[in-house]
Amino acid sequence: MKSRKNFVLVIFGASGSLAKHKIFPAIYKMIKREYEAKQYMVLGFARTHKTDEEFREEFRESLDLSETDNIQGVLKNIFYCSGDYSNKQDYKKLKKIIDGYEKNHFGANTKSVRCFYLAIPPVVFEQVVENIGLSGLKEDRAHIENRLIIEKPFGRDLVTAKALETVLMNYFKESEVYRIDHYLGKETVQNLLIFRFVNKFIEPLFNSRYISNVQITSAESVGVENRAGYFDHAGIVRDMIQPHVLQMLSLIAMERPTSFSAKAIKDEKVKVLNLIRPVSMNNDTINIVRAQYTSGVIRGHKVRSYREEEGIGVNSQTETYAALKFYIDNDRWFGIPFFVRAGKRMSKKSTVINIQFKDLPALQTFSKCTPIPSNILTIKIQPEESIFIKMFTKKSGTDFDIKPSQLTFFQSCDDCLDAYSRLINDALIGDNTLFIRYDEIDIAWQIVDPILLSFEKEKLPRLDYYASGSDGPARADIMLREAGYSWIDY
Amino acid sequence: MKSRKNFVLVIFGASGSLAKHKIFPAIYKMIKREYEAKQYMVLGFARTHKTDEEFREEFRESLDLSETDNIQGVLKNIFYCSGDYSNKQDYKKLKKIIDGYEKNHFGANTKSVRCFYLAIPPVVFEQVVENIGLSGLKEDRAHIENRLIIEKPFGRDLVTAKALETVLMNYFKESEVYRIDHYLGKETVQNLLIFRFVNKFIEPLFNSRYISNVQITSAESVGVENRAGYFDHAGIVRDMIQPHVLQMLSLIAMERPTSFSAKAIKDEKVKVLNLIRPVSMNNDTINIVRAQYTSGVIRGHKVRSYREEEGIGVNSQTETYAALKFYIDNDRWFGIPFFVRAGKRMSKKSTVINIQFKDLPALQTFSKCTPIPSNILTIKIQPEESIFIKMFTKKSGTDFDIKPSQLTFFQSCDDCLDAYSRLINDALIGDNTLFIRYDEIDIAWQIVDPILLSFEKEKLPRLDYYASGSDGPARADIMLREAGYSWIDY
Repeated sequence: MKSRKNFVLVIFGASGSLAKHKIFPAIYKMIKREYEAKQYMVLGFARTHKTDEEFREEFRESLDLSETDNIQGVLKNIFYCSGDYSNKQDYKKLKKIIDGYEKNHFGANTKSVRCFYLAIPPVVFEQVVENIGLSGLKEDRAHIENRLIIEKPFGRDLVTAKALETVLMNYFKESEVYRIDHYLGKETVQNLLIFRFVNKFIEPLFNSRYISNVQITSAESVGVENRAGYFDHAGIVRDMIQPHVLQMLSLIAMERPTSFSAKAIKDEKVKVLNLIRPVSMNNDTINIVRAQYTSGVIRGHKVRSYREEEGIGVNSQTETYAALKFYIDNDRWFGIPFFVRAGKRMSKKSTVINIQFKDLPALQTFSKCTPIPSNILTIKIQPEESIFIKMFTKKSGTDFDIKPSQLTFFQSCDDCLDAYSRLINDALIGDNTLFIRYDEIDIAWQIVDPILLSFEKEKLPRLDYYASGSDGPARADIMLREAGYSWIDY
Repeated sequence: MKSRKNFVLVIFGASGSLAKHKIFPAIYKMIKREYEAKQYMVLGFARTHKTDEEFREEFRESLDLSETDNIQGVLKNIFYCSGDYSNKQDYKKLKKIIDGYEKNHFGANTKSVRCFYLAIPPVVFEQVVENIGLSGLKEDRAHIENRLIIEKPFGRDLVTAKALETVLMNYFKESEVYRIDHYLGKETVQNLLIFRFVNKFIEPLFNSRYISNVQITSAESVGVENRAGYFDHAGIVRDMIQPHVLQMLSLIAMERPTSFSAKAIKDEKVKVLNLIRPVSMNNDTINIVRAQYTSGVIRGHKVRSYREEEGIGVNSQTETYAALKFYIDNDRWFGIPFFVRAGKRMSKKSTVINIQFKDLPALQTFSKCTPIPSNILTIKIQPEESIFIKMFTKKSGTDFDIKPSQLTFFQSCDDCLDAYSRLINDALIGDNTLFIRYDEIDIAWQIVDPILLSFEKEKLPRLDYYASGSDGPARADIMLREAGYSWIDY
């Protein structure tokens, strides 16, 4: 099952920016590293008319020039087919191209993979899946394995997610569907599991006895960019909190899986997400902050407010920032807040998990630096990847005094596969460990649905504002201060 | 109290090898770093006749040539006086030299320190202390503080230690006595306290729930060298286990002190030593191993057996190696063995504490490297200093597999004061944190006295043998194997 086979990879949405910026470079890197000895075909599909040669040129242009070693050998296996997502005949055309290629290059009955990558707008997900199924493009002969890679968003709430899932399950088995979250392809995220569950000295500390609070931040410095049409109807909770931040939270908070199998890990992720206490909407304390960016300055450049962005309405109520206080009702985490936040146009791009340890009983001899700052374990996911802890060692010299120092457990290597290369490779070999199972998506929507409903129906909490280039609205600071905490640098 | 003052440092035993190899270079380094702006006198005392100039030349020769910057400025404050340890007149002579120097250089009533460093054979400790006291060399004027630095061994058993202490206390106050253990001057040993008690994420792990066993090794590759006369009447338990190894053990095992004051730390060290269960002499299990080196090969050189060494009797029963299994009867450590060993002519010079974590419940997915080795926290004291842990991180690349890696918490700096420089400086400024209080010595003798009695009177356990250049006798391996453990690389 988990060996490399000959493959056909069909990219739906081959003219889009995701394909050009992420998927093409990832495919090239993966092929160079893992598939040069295999037969394979990469087949782009989109509405735009272009020849194979034009598509190959686009593919080549997407690559970093420093890595286009033996590019011709790869390009000759790259093809393009234009068509309409709604037109069944175009799927037949695809099928014919693929059948022909497989016959000429793979040899009869050699095991191979057909992988369909949906890098398309979510509005056409269901249509494309249906047409793949109905057209026979999804192949049922025993020696061919089918895969479907689907990008987020998976629905825009619980109801639409369930509907999409129903369509998928009409044509594909759960084991054939690879729901991608590129965060999960990062070395650091994978290392987190090893860090927690293989090293004996870490796991005893991961509980309410030793941890004071957990903070997950997913900050971007960019604004809405060219995604206004999608984003203004989604908001940051749908765009970041539901798919990414809750994934991070589940990996940090989950119990020990019975094994490192995909199933065992996902079972534990779902279990802990199920134990998140519904966020209270009462007004006694702040549990949710939602906000939108105003104009401001980022790295010396003046930038527009959200409502001035192209394609955004002047009265848009969409949140570009959200901060939430979660509690997990199990023995391990009872009473320990998980503060999560995501925002655009913040002071920097950074995805990071900060785990703050409880303070020690006072050791007042260190008067020079009283109070001693807390130990903080940091899991940095973007832009650079690492796991480190802020600790204390002795100042060198004769004083019996302490100094802070940073201890790095893990740092991502330069020659690691990037997240997309890794995930596409995993999908091709049939390892779904780092992909998302439907029940994870379902429970994540259960968590955020009441919040979205409050935003959209009740207009609660009120929409706050924060200057572009800041670290978010003042109310987010107040939310933590009320609870006795403060945001850690992200 | 703890500021730098003008000082007179009298070194008794100024012709000996300890003075030349350790004390002179340490004094020079300390002066260069801390005392160039002060007035000071270093005064050597020993039986050999020599002039100040001859002594200065010896002092200069003891230094590393790369560090003899402005050596003349230091040398002019160095003097020598020959005399007999038993002759009171010679102490008067010393007093006259010192009084004159203080008068000419320190200014009347300026606070200063007189420090007496006993770098002499233990047989003359009591005589010299008495003569310092009786001759008036110990100065009682209020602006002069007196210190006595005394090297190990402090007695050869509990009775002789108590007798020596009685003599000291006849002439000095406890606060004036600095019992030196140069291990305690190492940065790593001091850092161990900060590591354990300032960082919140370490202390929760230091107990029987998470630790499997602790191993303290003090190995030398040298043999008895020129210390045959002393060593053959002492043995390794007196020479290493009682003074050094039990100190290391107390620092690892002690409870949190109420502060980092010298008193609070020593109180806890004594408390935990008091809780060491007397080592059982029954024959059901091996609890003690004693052994002597035979001839062998160390780094390609053939070396003699202990009994062939110069000054050692052909039938000597003295142990050059001992390994012991200790238990500490408190809540923290109940049931966890502390294996300690010290030996000469072992395969390498290494003083190290290895703390092995209990194994995790099996995570059998990592079949490629099952069983997963334990995490081991290592505190290395000699020859290099560091604190590190053997942990596991993800192998880079697509496999979800682990690799061992070493995580360094602390590494001694190049510009740190060496242990002797630091300790002499501490004695001069009046900080006795890193010196040994008498009750620590007392309890350490209480622990080893029954063992020594068994060796010497009962001849039990039997004397084993190990080849020079090996890691000790087979019975030491059996002792651990019986208990379900094995020695960790030292």
